[in-house]
Amino acid sequence: MNTIVPRPVDAVIAAVREFLGDRLSTAQAVREQHSRGEDQTPPTLPDAVAFVETTEEVSRILALCHRHEVPVVAFGAGTSLEGHVNPVRRGLSLDLSRMTGIREVNAEDMDCLIEPGVTRQQLNDFLRDRGMFFPVDPGSVCTIGGMCATRASGTNAVRYGTIRENVLGLEVVLADGRVIQTGGRARKGANGYDLTRLFIGSEGTLGVITRIRLRLHGIPEAMSAAVCQFPDLAGAVNTTIATMQSGIPVARIELLDADQMEACIRYSKLEGFRPTPTLFLEFHGTHAAVKEQAEAVEAIAADHGGEGFRWASDTETRSKLWQARHDAYWAGLALVPGHRGITTDVCVPISTLAEAILGAKADAVASGFTTCIVGHVGDGNFHQIILFDPNDPQGLERAWELDRKIVARGLSLGGTCSGEHGVGIGKREFLEQEHGPEALAVMRSIKTSLDPKGILNPGKMFRN
Amino acid sequence: MNTIVPRPVDAVIAAVREFLGDRLSTAQAVREQHSRGEDQTPPTLPDAVAFVETTEEVSRILALCHRHEVPVVAFGAGTSLEGHVNPVRRGLSLDLSRMTGIREVNAEDMDCLIEPGVTRQQLNDFLRDRGMFFPVDPGSVCTIGGMCATRASGTNAVRYGTIRENVLGLEVVLADGRVIQTGGRARKGANGYDLTRLFIGSEGTLGVITRIRLRLHGIPEAMSAAVCQFPDLAGAVNTTIATMQSGIPVARIELLDADQMEACIRYSKLEGFRPTPTLFLEFHGTHAAVKEQAEAVEAIAADHGGEGFRWASDTETRSKLWQARHDAYWAGLALVPGHRGITTDVCVPISTLAEAILGAKADAVASGFTTCIVGHVGDGNFHQIILFDPNDPQGLERAWELDRKIVARGLSLGGTCSGEHGVGIGKREFLEQEHGPEALAVMRSIKTSLDPKGILNPGKMFRN
Repeated sequence: MNTIVPRPVDAVIAAVREFLGDRLSTAQAVREQHSRGEDQTPPTLPDAVAFVETTEEVSRILALCHRHEVPVVAFGAGTSLEGHVNPVRRGLSLDLSRMTGIREVNAEDMDCLIEPGVTRQQLNDFLRDRGMFFPVDPGSVCTIGGMCATRASGTNAVRYGTIRENVLGLEVVLADGRVIQTGGRARKGANGYDLTRLFIGSEGTLGVITRIRLRLHGIPEAMSAAVCQFPDLAGAVNTTIATMQSGIPVARIELLDADQMEACIRYSKLEGFRPTPTLFLEFHGTHAAVKEQAEAVEAIAADHGGEGFRWASDTETRSKLWQARHDAYWAGLALVPGHRGITTDVCVPISTLAEAILGAKADAVASGFTTCIVGHVGDGNFHQIILFDPNDPQGLERAWELDRKIVARGLSLGGTCSGEHGVGIGKREFLEQEHGPEALAVMRSIKTSLDPKGILNPGKMFRN
Repeated sequence: MNTIVPRPVDAVIAAVREFLGDRLSTAQAVREQHSRGEDQTPPTLPDAVAFVETTEEVSRILALCHRHEVPVVAFGAGTSLEGHVNPVRRGLSLDLSRMTGIREVNAEDMDCLIEPGVTRQQLNDFLRDRGMFFPVDPGSVCTIGGMCATRASGTNAVRYGTIRENVLGLEVVLADGRVIQTGGRARKGANGYDLTRLFIGSEGTLGVITRIRLRLHGIPEAMSAAVCQFPDLAGAVNTTIATMQSGIPVARIELLDADQMEACIRYSKLEGFRPTPTLFLEFHGTHAAVKEQAEAVEAIAADHGGEGFRWASDTETRSKLWQARHDAYWAGLALVPGHRGITTDVCVPISTLAEAILGAKADAVASGFTTCIVGHVGDGNFHQIILFDPNDPQGLERAWELDRKIVARGLSLGGTCSGEHGVGIGKREFLEQEHGPEALAVMRSIKTSLDPKGILNPGKMFRN
């Protein structure tokens, strides 16, 4: 006779349903939507999905999961590229995307307090009439909670910093349901351990972020975008290096290699451009400062074979250009119909950028893969999309092999395996290599002290 | 019969002497030099002082202290204003001031790797001919290791960020002697917990910093300083608020109230100034940008009763001015001969700065103390030096009372008890008030996980 042993998660589901009602779902379709992000990690279904709306709900759910030792994975917009939201040990997917309140905007102090499900687009739409903006821009439609959890950055980081530099404080629910406030409204502080920075980039393994206090910035008097094409990759990369070394405060400086440019021309119907290495640039400041910066970079580009700037100063042309840049990942995937892609995220010291990028491209050519490179090169960060045939049984594994080679070169040049996408599942193997076993042991000991039962996003960041 | 029980520290001293020789000192004068910083905390003598020169020595000493459970207090230049270097439970004072190596300067990447005993002056002297500088400037002659440990900032933070934003990575010796590397040479990373930021501001309670990789900045094309005097404090404060809200990237904006200005005129022999509230300003950028910024701030100041800018564009006049600003603490102490001083370090959201400062000054007047205010007002941070008579048995306690009142107002306005001096001994009582018991419990649990025997700078940051 079979006895059905009740699973711990069933007790949690029953208890959570009492206060969430039908916002706790076990429907197959909902669980599938929460089984993965946008990467190639194999999906896993959570046992249930909880659509939370308040900090108190998050706290009660975590206290229950803690008591019953059930895994909890925070879920925002599901745009992770490293398997972060994949519930590899099942349990609950905690969907925070309905927590979209903008609770405070302090125009005088240029800060705001938001809930984690707010996207950067929603926030910027809200702020536009107030003359302010939130600069961190990873391109995709992601939640700001997710951006905090993965230490996101993107195209504007070269000027405004990453999310790390733009968060003043957090509200975090700990593994056992306790709620803490970190940071505050002051612009700086020497007031205890920097818990804010500890939770930023902790990938849901130390707590669940339920409020975020952000720094905002004034919309600059003038913004102007330009495109500059180059006959070769070295010219575009060396223009970036020289620009950064000159200390010119460019707002964005993005590289697209010839393959990526071809993909974007096709996908985003960019007219009048050729498939050659290209820099997309943007300048922010007063009218005089923008003019001064742009002239300086144009002169540097000319020294490296750049073919003159094409300007996009009106909002519409500028938006079309940056939309094309943001769609680069999808454009790349569309380059070879039926293929799928993985992407690297190496970030190196700027002086080694040419070696890192040219080497990575040569490796790709040697291994026979089509790859596109697009990068936040002002920070030394680039993404190489490796396209592979999903019908080739060795395709994905060979793509990972190439990825490992590109990462190894990045590390040997003093760089990191991840500039902005995070560790998740895909980069766990590089973490020890990069930091060494003792630093990793410190990370683990912090993890253990804050989440002794290991219920928060297990299987991420650390290999067992 | 009395038996002399050997103390654990004696075993450590004997073992350390074997490899440090006479760099391990138990001389009374040396121990006295390491018994306190520059604040009013009662001194305590360490049992011995170890003058270390290498990471390996630090590691061996920590391993010994860990085994024998002997306290270790890291010591740099001894300029702490919060009792950080005071060995309240005796043990070893670990003097890192001889570790002054500048190990790498990467001009192309604008970074450097230094040992913790390097002062900012030493580093800037070294960098000057290379066209770069390290901007974080707390004024005093302090070591950069100490600046990291206390999350220091100072006059330039409004433009260049605090030490937190200017450190790329650290080498840290853990409580048991293990050595870890944090961060790296890349400008950003989403590569595991942010251990760099965890050690910055940890005040020697989590590890001992033995290497620091810093971001550097290019020396601007133009730098210009100006002084603007105001008939009242409100005018100077409101000029600051309006300047920050306009997004003008001032490099420094420092407030001296009438009492502080009187003190500086006397102490630093500043000619041609009156003892009225005054802003010291500095602008960095291209010649055009400096001109544009200065004109904008001058117009704002005029709207608030400012009496026109007096310029200091040549290096000598500029240096004299900033030296006077840096000497403000000593000038304040000299205002009433025979008096001593404690200083507040409140930092508030900029919109509340007028209320915080005017309220603090009114409190001081009501309580009968002479106080001077000097502040990094662009960040919302100000120091109020409270002068007290050391011969009055209640003098210090009454000064602390006033301090508590000023901090309480700062906290009620959304600010912090410490913008930059740190917690140490003096601000432990405010830490729980500011962060709440649960956040403090998280800090304690991190402390316990990294230093289970509590040997690293015990008695600081947390009350038992």
